[in-house]
Amino acid sequence: MKKVEDQILIIFGASGDLTKRKLIPALFELYKQNLLPNKFAVLGASRSALSDDEFRSRADEFIPNDEKREEFKKLLFYQSVQNNEADDFIPLKERLDEISGALEIEQNYVFYLSTPPSLYPVIPKMLCQNGLSKSENNFRRLIVEKPFGTDLKSAKELNKQLLNYFEEEQIYRIDHYLGKETVQNMLVTRFSNGIFEPLWNRRYIERVEITSAESLGVEGRGGYYESSGALRDMLQNHLLQVAGFVAMEPPVVVEADAIRNETLKVFQSLRPIKENEVSRYVIRGQYTASTIGGKKVAGYREEPGVDKLSRTETFVSLKFFIDNWRWAGVPFYIRTGKKLPTRVTEIVIHFRKVPHHLFGNASSDSNNQLIIRIQPDEGILLKFGMKTPGAGFKVQTVNMDFHYSDLADKKVPAAYERLLLDCMQGDATLYSRGDAVEAAWEFVQPIINAWETNPEIPIYGYPAGSWGPEESAKLIVNGDWRYPCKNLHNDGLYCEL
Amino acid sequence: MKKVEDQILIIFGASGDLTKRKLIPALFELYKQNLLPNKFAVLGASRSALSDDEFRSRADEFIPNDEKREEFKKLLFYQSVQNNEADDFIPLKERLDEISGALEIEQNYVFYLSTPPSLYPVIPKMLCQNGLSKSENNFRRLIVEKPFGTDLKSAKELNKQLLNYFEEEQIYRIDHYLGKETVQNMLVTRFSNGIFEPLWNRRYIERVEITSAESLGVEGRGGYYESSGALRDMLQNHLLQVAGFVAMEPPVVVEADAIRNETLKVFQSLRPIKENEVSRYVIRGQYTASTIGGKKVAGYREEPGVDKLSRTETFVSLKFFIDNWRWAGVPFYIRTGKKLPTRVTEIVIHFRKVPHHLFGNASSDSNNQLIIRIQPDEGILLKFGMKTPGAGFKVQTVNMDFHYSDLADKKVPAAYERLLLDCMQGDATLYSRGDAVEAAWEFVQPIINAWETNPEIPIYGYPAGSWGPEESAKLIVNGDWRYPCKNLHNDGLYCEL
Repeated sequence: MKKVEDQILIIFGASGDLTKRKLIPALFELYKQNLLPNKFAVLGASRSALSDDEFRSRADEFIPNDEKREEFKKLLFYQSVQNNEADDFIPLKERLDEISGALEIEQNYVFYLSTPPSLYPVIPKMLCQNGLSKSENNFRRLIVEKPFGTDLKSAKELNKQLLNYFEEEQIYRIDHYLGKETVQNMLVTRFSNGIFEPLWNRRYIERVEITSAESLGVEGRGGYYESSGALRDMLQNHLLQVAGFVAMEPPVVVEADAIRNETLKVFQSLRPIKENEVSRYVIRGQYTASTIGGKKVAGYREEPGVDKLSRTETFVSLKFFIDNWRWAGVPFYIRTGKKLPTRVTEIVIHFRKVPHHLFGNASSDSNNQLIIRIQPDEGILLKFGMKTPGAGFKVQTVNMDFHYSDLADKKVPAAYERLLLDCMQGDATLYSRGDAVEAAWEFVQPIINAWETNPEIPIYGYPAGSWGPEESAKLIVNGDWRYPCKNLHNDGLYCEL
Repeated sequence: MKKVEDQILIIFGASGDLTKRKLIPALFELYKQNLLPNKFAVLGASRSALSDDEFRSRADEFIPNDEKREEFKKLLFYQSVQNNEADDFIPLKERLDEISGALEIEQNYVFYLSTPPSLYPVIPKMLCQNGLSKSENNFRRLIVEKPFGTDLKSAKELNKQLLNYFEEEQIYRIDHYLGKETVQNMLVTRFSNGIFEPLWNRRYIERVEITSAESLGVEGRGGYYESSGALRDMLQNHLLQVAGFVAMEPPVVVEADAIRNETLKVFQSLRPIKENEVSRYVIRGQYTASTIGGKKVAGYREEPGVDKLSRTETFVSLKFFIDNWRWAGVPFYIRTGKKLPTRVTEIVIHFRKVPHHLFGNASSDSNNQLIIRIQPDEGILLKFGMKTPGAGFKVQTVNMDFHYSDLADKKVPAAYERLLLDCMQGDATLYSRGDAVEAAWEFVQPIINAWETNPEIPIYGYPAGSWGPEESAKLIVNGDWRYPCKNLHNDGLYCEL
């Protein structure tokens, strides 16, 4: 494991939620594991007027009261910054000089934009104007949080602006899904085993399902969600990226650009859904009031901050094709929503049945499935047919499974730990490249257009706690989605409803 | 489940060990599960003078004192029979008439030869001479126990004689290995799953290992074993049959002759081992005195009934090839012996590594293995590579497994239960056909010849409790056999030494 170069991490939006709940805990974890650079500091920045001590004591709430905590907190500094004109960044620059001088840290800087999206083009501009975006002897990197644009046009505009101030190689567009072990494990599963790749194509795979279900609703963040919705919040970024990892060709090497070249090719091969086809391929839904476990649950339109006539989707499911040699004719399905029966993210590879049915008819043979669970209970499950003990040759489907938690000696690192460390090391493998972000928006844009311009495309209600609108089931022949639920069943994983 | 036709089972050798320890318990089990015909009787026959009651009370020792036991014992009858001339079978014939008349059982007869092999041709002749081998309206079947010959010549001779008195379709040559659930499950695993058959060939499989290890020695049966040895006792029959199931092409249907046509083709495709190549492809061994767990253990030559200079092998391992389109160039390995470290029978399919090593070099990628356990703890285990949690892309091999015992509602039937029931139903799928038996002997014969005629081919000693002679390890590149041992390890199966 190579040691990371000395550097300072500057977090814009340091008084915000993400910093407190994700970034500081992730940094503390890296600190405890001795993965941070030898010389390292975090400089929090935001409009609020805070002292270093006030910023440090805010961390107490989100990191455990460990003997290491006080040591770690000494790495934290704070600088109040306004974003109105270039001169506002002079104090920041001076503070960076001061910290790097006092702690003898090389002037390698990672700037993390954890601010409202409106500041994404502003801060890079000011960094550039103050000579902080480039350096001959040191690296300067920029991490941009999601959302990266709200549609194709805004994403292109944002890319254009960022590239005025930073080079593409310096820009790390975060997609925290790519920081998840099980998503990365897709690459290892596919490309380190002799047994999977030969089967990984249209000849042996019947369809692919990607499900990301949340049991929670908007939880008080209705105001934010109103301007986003399931398509932008989950599908355009996280789930298309996951599909990219499932579908990609083997990369030349395991390096950022080689891998991102391949996911880009997948996005470029997505068969465009035309605006007039949207209602055939895409189902949107919104949860309605219902009763879960005897308890009344509000519908989306009754949530605080939500328009009483809102047409924001809390559920979306999608059927699409990847028009290339490997996947021609194989349908891919993505489904995501809030207030579904359980919280689970999984990929289901449905293999084709055997071509000749020795043990009866097609229904007697096994539906082989490889299920890759991204959360919770990360792992992998293979469903296959074995002989039912006893006379004759009766087939029954059984499960083999592997749980990451069985590797008791190995902690599965949180997504932000992995991503922060990668960026500090200059590894952009798990970050989105500008061209891929635009390609994903390009695929999604006709859906946005159709929904916005054609009031006849329905937004279906679904009772909170159900698996979404009935119309979603119909996207797959026989409504044959896999329906995982939370209760452990004797398959060791999920019961199937 | 079709009900079996009414019939009488006649067991020759009824006072012998196999009858008491295997056949009667298997019949009792079938009785309890209500799988026997509505009208059914067992007629024990041997030289000993026993009454029905004496025969019945002998069963007590080997079947549990169940409330059903007394009921079941009413189905048991006994007839003393001499085998000197045809007339000796007249009392047997009369007794059969009497039983079938009294119990109103159709005169369908299954004759089971559980006698010394010298009687295998004698009894069928007498049955024939007494008109018991054929009937216009009823079926007559003949079950022949192992060993079926002691070499190619004697097997051919035995086939010829049996075919003088019975038709091939009436003859059921038992191989109790084929009665084992996990052996039969090979067919279901291979032909009911879309995911295995595409990988099941020379392109994706590097080699196949079949191991049948016993921890016991000859256990007082040294006299018998002296005339047999590991090659005849295990390899020629059981383990070549298992190899046949692993290697066969998909049968046209799941019926006796369709399946046996395919195993025969495998035997016909075995690349002959020439006599002068035997020492390169076949290793024989004999266990020597050693200390196991602090306890002194005798060597084979010190066992009662064994020649002090015996050259009978208690261990044999073999490398061979199947010269057909599917398996060209893929080595198969069989290893069997007594006084090995544990009792286990398993098939290991070693898949080839990925063709391009993305995550380092060849040794960083996973050796995918599919392990099919025949006994004990019947089940299936898949070894494959996953990502080690944490930074980078490190591959580690993990296991997914399935144990038959997890199907708690399904009892795995004993081999003899399955085989007896199959024969009673006229299903010969799991019995060996004459041509296949001869083909298996044909493959083994040059090994027998070389060992008998060339005193320079060594018989290696190996300490009791070890995995056989060191020379056996060398059959596989790097000595890379799988070494399962009994203690449960965190792979859920066996530790590997």
